[in-house]
Amino acid sequence: MISQQVFKQAVEKTLWYLDHANIVVTEQEKQHIEVADFSLGDLERIGIEVVTYINTDRVCAKELVLFPFQTCPEHYHPVIGDYPGKEETFRCRWGKMFLYVEGTSTQHIHAIVPEGIYTVFHEIVLHPGEQYTIKPNTRHWFQSGPEGGIVSEFSTPSFDDLDIFIDPRIQRKPEITTE
Amino acid sequence: MISQQVFKQAVEKTLWYLDHANIVVTEQEKQHIEVADFSLGDLERIGIEVVTYINTDRVCAKELVLFPFQTCPEHYHPVIGDYPGKEETFRCRWGKMFLYVEGTSTQHIHAIVPEGIYTVFHEIVLHPGEQYTIKPNTRHWFQSGPEGGIVSEFSTPSFDDLDIFIDPRIQRKPEITTE
Repeated sequence: MISQQVFKQAVEKTLWYLDHANIVVTEQEKQHIEVADFSLGDLERIGIEVVTYINTDRVCAKELVLFPFQTCPEHYHPVIGDYPGKEETFRCRWGKMFLYVEGTSTQHIHAIVPEGIYTVFHEIVLHPGEQYTIKPNTRHWFQSGPEGGIVSEFSTPSFDDLDIFIDPRIQRKPEITTE
Repeated sequence: MISQQVFKQAVEKTLWYLDHANIVVTEQEKQHIEVADFSLGDLERIGIEVVTYINTDRVCAKELVLFPFQTCPEHYHPVIGDYPGKEETFRCRWGKMFLYVEGTSTQHIHAIVPEGIYTVFHEIVLHPGEQYTIKPNTRHWFQSGPEGGIVSEFSTPSFDDLDIFIDPRIQRKPEITTE
């Protein structure tokens, strides 16, 4: 559960990062910023802030904002019926993002591995302008650098609630208290 | 045909606009900027500059740069075999874009209509942060405002060579002279 206070502060900070990166969002988008703590109650360390631009039955585009050293925990996008699973490209727009995918483990990774279950450690470091495409069914997690980071996500449709997180404690859908 | 000189100047200007809008592209992307004059030989008025970030068999994302009052002429994205046609969302990132689609004609449009064949005049004005989704088989054209404009395009796969342009003189694939 995210308290109203934590939620509001996270939204304010998200807007600061977007503004700092010269990414313009509408007033309506500002009212619908998603703040997810994955039900772990430790947003600053494990969480993500999302502006969804579009999510039709064919295309999805988002801006993902991570605070300094904030982590989006390990997950993958499964096949769902006829849908072959989400393919997503992360393009770093500002700051730095440490991305971990399946493959040979990198010896000395940059991220601070948070508590929880993390199994893939093949590191890709994304600086502004750099990008990486993650195919469906591929485990991945990512953490921003010390100044935070923003990535544009270009993908097939998102069904976030159906993503498979490796840590069984995680619930993807954010719950925000009314107080 | 675009001369080497016109091409190089257009690339330089494109990089200026991207830089001015704080959109970072890699050195490799700088070497692959597409400059299209639609074979009309009047790039400043009818043309487009494109950075393609990704174009897989499922997702495409580009940055479209238009110089002041430059026009991307009227066209649509047809069904191609099993492919239901390209769906694209234009999100203005910088400057201003005047977009024209099918529907009730707007009485006093902002664009300067260039020579050629233009049949749709339902105007959507996109300021930074604003966006519009164009479904397949929908005629559309667009022109930037007096300061130029940049839109991010989020779409299903692009097959630019198969787009249908209304003006029969147009050839989409750019040809650049070797001198």
